[in-house]
Amino acid sequence: MKNLVVGQSGGPTSVINGSLAGVYYGAKKAGFNKVYGMLNGIEGLLEDRLVDLDEYFKDKNNLELLKRTPSSFLGTCRFKLGSIKDNEKNYEKIFKILDKHSIDSFIYIGGNDSMDTVESLSDYAKEKKKKQNFIGVPKTIDNDLPIIDHCPGYGSAAKYIATSTKELIRDNSSFGKSRLTVCIIEIMGRHAGWLTAAASLAKGKDCEGVDAIYLPEYDFDIDEFLARIEKLRETKSSIVIAVSEGLKTKDGKFVCESGVSERKKDAFGHVQLSGCASTLADIVAQKTGLKTRAIEFSTIQRSASHLCSLTDVNEAESLGAAAVEAAHNGKTGVMSIIDGKGNISTYDIHEIANVEKKVPTEWYDNKKKQMKKPFLDYARPLIQGELTPIYKDGLPVHLVRK
Amino acid sequence: MKNLVVGQSGGPTSVINGSLAGVYYGAKKAGFNKVYGMLNGIEGLLEDRLVDLDEYFKDKNNLELLKRTPSSFLGTCRFKLGSIKDNEKNYEKIFKILDKHSIDSFIYIGGNDSMDTVESLSDYAKEKKKKQNFIGVPKTIDNDLPIIDHCPGYGSAAKYIATSTKELIRDNSSFGKSRLTVCIIEIMGRHAGWLTAAASLAKGKDCEGVDAIYLPEYDFDIDEFLARIEKLRETKSSIVIAVSEGLKTKDGKFVCESGVSERKKDAFGHVQLSGCASTLADIVAQKTGLKTRAIEFSTIQRSASHLCSLTDVNEAESLGAAAVEAAHNGKTGVMSIIDGKGNISTYDIHEIANVEKKVPTEWYDNKKKQMKKPFLDYARPLIQGELTPIYKDGLPVHLVRK
Repeated sequence: MKNLVVGQSGGPTSVINGSLAGVYYGAKKAGFNKVYGMLNGIEGLLEDRLVDLDEYFKDKNNLELLKRTPSSFLGTCRFKLGSIKDNEKNYEKIFKILDKHSIDSFIYIGGNDSMDTVESLSDYAKEKKKKQNFIGVPKTIDNDLPIIDHCPGYGSAAKYIATSTKELIRDNSSFGKSRLTVCIIEIMGRHAGWLTAAASLAKGKDCEGVDAIYLPEYDFDIDEFLARIEKLRETKSSIVIAVSEGLKTKDGKFVCESGVSERKKDAFGHVQLSGCASTLADIVAQKTGLKTRAIEFSTIQRSASHLCSLTDVNEAESLGAAAVEAAHNGKTGVMSIIDGKGNISTYDIHEIANVEKKVPTEWYDNKKKQMKKPFLDYARPLIQGELTPIYKDGLPVHLVRK
Repeated sequence: MKNLVVGQSGGPTSVINGSLAGVYYGAKKAGFNKVYGMLNGIEGLLEDRLVDLDEYFKDKNNLELLKRTPSSFLGTCRFKLGSIKDNEKNYEKIFKILDKHSIDSFIYIGGNDSMDTVESLSDYAKEKKKKQNFIGVPKTIDNDLPIIDHCPGYGSAAKYIATSTKELIRDNSSFGKSRLTVCIIEIMGRHAGWLTAAASLAKGKDCEGVDAIYLPEYDFDIDEFLARIEKLRETKSSIVIAVSEGLKTKDGKFVCESGVSERKKDAFGHVQLSGCASTLADIVAQKTGLKTRAIEFSTIQRSASHLCSLTDVNEAESLGAAAVEAAHNGKTGVMSIIDGKGNISTYDIHEIANVEKKVPTEWYDNKKKQMKKPFLDYARPLIQGELTPIYKDGLPVHLVRK
């Protein structure tokens, strides 16, 4: 038997399909017979919902379209396998389905939670002396996986954030000092500030950059924030500030829970984690009398494949292919990784799953609320190059499942 | 004397600088001596803040960069001249400054309010037998100017909206039915639904399109809205709905004032006109128990020049140049216009200023909440073609004023 199955898990990115493309041609190169895709990740695998990827990707044009298609081509899920002890039936079911389709290589593209799945399955296989190999392919716009230098998905999200921030800074400055507006941009990343930090890349000879960056790694102080704006308004005719959705005050409360508006709750009474910028814009307007505007990049930042980074797409492909090669060579319980020089290898998944990598403290100036040079040197290479969309009727073309 | 002055007014667009480029080379072609730019429109002109545009645009590369630069290169304003009777001093001041710089042609790029300025100044000039000509160049993402078939700025905003909506539909459908999410996208346009209607362009062979479109021209009924979602959830695994920021209920209240959350007020106690999608997402979550997400395209939709429509840029240029030609030929009190076949001419500004063009009722199916074919046939040509950004260090390069 020599079949392979690949799945996508967790929040989509602009290049998660680049990884899938890499897995597919890697598998073909390595001589795998069938290459299956699981629909909606492990959730679909448990229901035996598999597709033969030859059906889609034998046509090389489709692979080119796939790389330009945002969101998970195979569908995704947020499914936790849980401990072997409490969920043995699910584990057994998975291996039964893998055996049924003569699958010996299992590739899973995802972030922290998904790597937990790879870890659990490879541990179970070892324990039960199963013959399948389990390999992870990194994917997360959050860039918070450890060991790896940077994660596929991050570069494209960073390119979108930097470009849109640059455009918004222009827009916000157009009216001049007589209509000074404080524009607060909310960027994803609940616990790690990698995405918010990417707003710093907007700065250059043709852009003054954002006036401040607030990362979730640091306590947020509303008095400091207001004082900073009061100071900025003395000299500036436009103020643009980037904040993480996950900002918390010293007492551990999310900023979006502490605003002047009534807090939003979802249908189950849970407070929704959104609206940090909106809350801050309300407070600034009330306390300073300035015109404010809150902008959320929301899920656009993870799905704007029309603006993806070519570097990111290429690395996503290479890391997908490297995972297949590892499986082909008999490895299991590892994730493909890349270092700062672009060297690709694999690493023990036990060191990766469920660990969150934060922005190094020495890369952030917490007094000036700006990223320092080491961050810029780190992130700039990740947004290089463009993969021009294929346009039809004025819009980028995507590949769809039948 | 044969000098010209050009200004930009009102909300910026992705192609307002395309119009400026057209005015500049049109003026050079027509043999104008000096081409001045007024900083921050009429507000800057009143303070004699003019720049010599040769300084920036003699270098043709800069004109290419200009066309790829979002927001108003010269800065903009929201300044109402008001009636001649009550504000004669300002009128006198303007003509004094025009005379001082030997300016005989005044070109103003803007929307409804700005055309009011052109109208007032040309009326005043006629009354007082002044020799200056006043010509308008259409600009508004809202597409609500009358007489003209479509407005420069609209095509690029529509292309951004359609592309991002297409990407968001992919993103929203990735989790499948088990995590069905209702995504509500809020689009600009307080009184006219042109921009919201552009979400319909996302639909095609590779995209199922948005599930409903709500235009501000029609009373919004929350019961109908909730019933539609309940119906959609029976069959769909993703629901995406486009709503105008300006939706109002039958009693004339903005939807964002009628939500379950406490309403947002600005520093002066005025209710902010934003958060229609957010209000609706709250209500849907509470009433249906479904997961919801509110997304606002906000000012990104008017500044995303990296995704502008080449058709739009070209037309913006042509309409700018046509305005100069009209001034050169002694016309005044007119705006350059374009018809549905691309023919360019000029039209009496008195028929244009302060009139708002709505989406024709026969182009919208108010039962299905979808745009009909005549709208698609109208809008599709406007989003054709791309003006690829000039990238440096991974980001689009913009032209800046010194």
